[in-house]
Amino acid sequence: MEIKLPTLEELRQISKQFNLDLEDEELKSFLSLISLQLESYKRLDILPDNIPRPKYPRHIGRPPTVEENPYGALAWITSIKGKDEGKLKNKRICIKDNVMVAGVPMLNGSRILEGFIPDMDATVVARILDEGGEIVAKTTCEDLCFSGGSHTSFPLPVLNPRNTEYMAGGSSSGSAVAVASGYCDMAIGGDQGGSIRIPSSWVGIYGLKPTYGLVPYTGAFSIEPTLDHLGPMANSVKDVAVLLEVIAGRDDLDPRQPESLPYPPVKPYSKLVEGEVKGMKVGIVKEGFGWPNSENDVDELVYASAKKFEELGVKVEETSIPLHRMGLDIWTPIAVEGATATMILGSGLGWGRKGLFETSIAEFFGNSLRTRARDLPNTVKGVLLIGYFMITRYNNKYYAKARNLSLILKKAYDNALSKYDALIMPTTPMKAMKYKSNPSFEEYFMMALGMINNTAPFDVTGHPAINVPVGYSHGLPVGMMIIGRHFEDDVVLKLAYAFEHLSK
Amino acid sequence: MEIKLPTLEELRQISKQFNLDLEDEELKSFLSLISLQLESYKRLDILPDNIPRPKYPRHIGRPPTVEENPYGALAWITSIKGKDEGKLKNKRICIKDNVMVAGVPMLNGSRILEGFIPDMDATVVARILDEGGEIVAKTTCEDLCFSGGSHTSFPLPVLNPRNTEYMAGGSSSGSAVAVASGYCDMAIGGDQGGSIRIPSSWVGIYGLKPTYGLVPYTGAFSIEPTLDHLGPMANSVKDVAVLLEVIAGRDDLDPRQPESLPYPPVKPYSKLVEGEVKGMKVGIVKEGFGWPNSENDVDELVYASAKKFEELGVKVEETSIPLHRMGLDIWTPIAVEGATATMILGSGLGWGRKGLFETSIAEFFGNSLRTRARDLPNTVKGVLLIGYFMITRYNNKYYAKARNLSLILKKAYDNALSKYDALIMPTTPMKAMKYKSNPSFEEYFMMALGMINNTAPFDVTGHPAINVPVGYSHGLPVGMMIIGRHFEDDVVLKLAYAFEHLSK
Repeated sequence: MEIKLPTLEELRQISKQFNLDLEDEELKSFLSLISLQLESYKRLDILPDNIPRPKYPRHIGRPPTVEENPYGALAWITSIKGKDEGKLKNKRICIKDNVMVAGVPMLNGSRILEGFIPDMDATVVARILDEGGEIVAKTTCEDLCFSGGSHTSFPLPVLNPRNTEYMAGGSSSGSAVAVASGYCDMAIGGDQGGSIRIPSSWVGIYGLKPTYGLVPYTGAFSIEPTLDHLGPMANSVKDVAVLLEVIAGRDDLDPRQPESLPYPPVKPYSKLVEGEVKGMKVGIVKEGFGWPNSENDVDELVYASAKKFEELGVKVEETSIPLHRMGLDIWTPIAVEGATATMILGSGLGWGRKGLFETSIAEFFGNSLRTRARDLPNTVKGVLLIGYFMITRYNNKYYAKARNLSLILKKAYDNALSKYDALIMPTTPMKAMKYKSNPSFEEYFMMALGMINNTAPFDVTGHPAINVPVGYSHGLPVGMMIIGRHFEDDVVLKLAYAFEHLSK
Repeated sequence: MEIKLPTLEELRQISKQFNLDLEDEELKSFLSLISLQLESYKRLDILPDNIPRPKYPRHIGRPPTVEENPYGALAWITSIKGKDEGKLKNKRICIKDNVMVAGVPMLNGSRILEGFIPDMDATVVARILDEGGEIVAKTTCEDLCFSGGSHTSFPLPVLNPRNTEYMAGGSSSGSAVAVASGYCDMAIGGDQGGSIRIPSSWVGIYGLKPTYGLVPYTGAFSIEPTLDHLGPMANSVKDVAVLLEVIAGRDDLDPRQPESLPYPPVKPYSKLVEGEVKGMKVGIVKEGFGWPNSENDVDELVYASAKKFEELGVKVEETSIPLHRMGLDIWTPIAVEGATATMILGSGLGWGRKGLFETSIAEFFGNSLRTRARDLPNTVKGVLLIGYFMITRYNNKYYAKARNLSLILKKAYDNALSKYDALIMPTTPMKAMKYKSNPSFEEYFMMALGMINNTAPFDVTGHPAINVPVGYSHGLPVGMMIIGRHFEDDVVLKLAYAFEHLSK
């Protein structure tokens, strides 16, 4: 099908929308100019696109049965095998359903993507297959990943296997539950506001948001490129480290990874985790405790757990980072206006960056936005209403200012990290929230966004941060977050590993 | 002034524009949600922004007199001095008027920016002052830099000092003419489609578009971040190299410069230019010659000039890069849709990148777009009409595909550059075009965009490319373009220097 010229009426509308005050005669002149420019578009149209093709054959798979899926964690069952040998041999691995696996349906938790079948493997998927891992399922995630609860996913919510009256947390809800319930050994999650760490905390597993740029985001559904992270989730630190070792490193296709070589620095994480922690220093960040939404038992258990590092010869001190309390405020315009631009205006891809663009996402999601935007979740409708209002009425200025302030926020953590090898605070201020099947409008949003105050700042600043389960309170897991210097994911893992083996 | 909540009617409009099908009752619920989110915005509002402040005091300066400005090259006269000593001591330097100099009015060639006074020095400006250079003027540029002619600048066109019946070329028209006419020693230009190299070619000076990312773009008006370049212009290669040496290198504020250290690699260009070229190999790219718009005298003089390298012991061969002929087609959606997104929708700043955002540009330009968009030049109106049409009706897909194909285009040049140290072709297929004061609609666009077929591809791929004057034909300068490997700006400069001294 040839690209069609705009109609005069379409040009009139654009002229009106942007106050260009063009007369019809002028618009007709522009139409002839456009017809010339479209010659370039037509020549591009007949060139094949430059999308990496999957290396290993596979069947399309099937939806899970009700019996297989007691918590709603699984979105699609598959069995894709890559190389026979490798670091992930005999490992069953789940992939969050916002990450492309070629030939396998992808919902990204949303009714609006029903019918979408990706044409490529995300880089992390290709790397898992190259190291002998078996992809056994796509896991349910929150609707377009815009929630830290697990109640917005289509077609079903994800329930907490520790107590099914509670949410699993999200947006990587299914990945966390598939790991926690033993369905798989490891899983890939995504994190833009806490989406790996929150469900890890609420179901009691290990989940690492790696340093920004360490793991390629290529082939995953973007929310806003400066916040996008993928990372490993598992039942042990060692497994988190092994999976990180496989998926980390430059792929030449992701502008979130700077262009120069050798970058980013990849390390033998699975070996380094076992290293000595004696003599290290950690700082307990006061401002991560005592929020208005903090639960006392969480604060107390995390504080006591942090203190336990002293048994390992680690120096533990309290420290203060007042700006941490502004982290969520700085995250908000970046997420809200950024997602409006990248996801909605930019059809899931956006502009202004190099690297690979997943054109099939733009094609499918862009068309869906025009034909069934009413099926967007209320979270994303809210983002769009606020974001478009702020972008058009306030000139995109708050996104810009928030990004400028993020440099100060990063420096505040870096200053603390010049004194400490790592920082500690609760991953979420509270344990898992109750699941409500018919929440009010306000409850729906509280269940989606009411727990990200400690996690979201590190999506803005890019520091690596892991959830470490530290025990149970009232039958629900409690999670401690360990935060490290950029590209010292190994240090964060080492501390987590030492703690894991201390408590055993 | 407090941030105002949207009205119900504004929300209705947004709901309608994006087909959200929300009822008024729902919109009222969203309004209460928005009121909560605005608390974050209000807390950000009272924080000071994080804009670098200028180090050296200055007067505001003054507009040039008619006598001072025979070619229209000068937009504003100033005299800003930095350090007493340095590599640029006693050098008079002009700055293209799309680059911010704090306290000095900036038009970016456009009536729409009348009244704008930047609050910061661009990084290149700060570096020039730190090395003892004197900033003597802001130079006229094409209206929002969207033209390779010199007829769209406000308030005056820029005429070619070699023959004032001809255009100087653009968009860095004033910088080229200020150098060529001896008003200054060196100038800063900007290049997104050829805007340093085209006027350098047409007025007969040296102008380098450096490797993408080598020189920070921080503090300059963006068209599309993946195309944005700043670079040096001068009457000798040595001066180009000295200025490059001063302005190149990481500033930690520009995401066009990858984050890892040490990056980008800066070299002692001013010393390296004098190095030996004997034994090097250059390829004359066939596809850069014989375009439908090529002039024979240009093709012949550039070809003969390239052959002259043999006198220096350089091996000269013909080579073929068929994809060069698609370069402009690949550039087109990136420039058209990218500029629509970054400049118009994104108020001059856009989204999805890290680094510094020049908030004062968003504030001023964004407001101007709403109150006086009719004053945009026809070039930008055309870009907006096509770009917004393609983004909204074709899901931003062609921008995405063009970026994917740019990886193949880059590889095509890289393959040739694995056999040759540098590539050669005419900078522009023709000598300077005639200036017409009352062009038809079609002529206006031809004068703006009809010369970028050889230059634009290297804005997409990021290779360094310099214009070298090789003589005159019919009284007008002819320019040869030398293109090198990424971050081998020194090689390109060395070849240019050798040629410059050969012909003397």
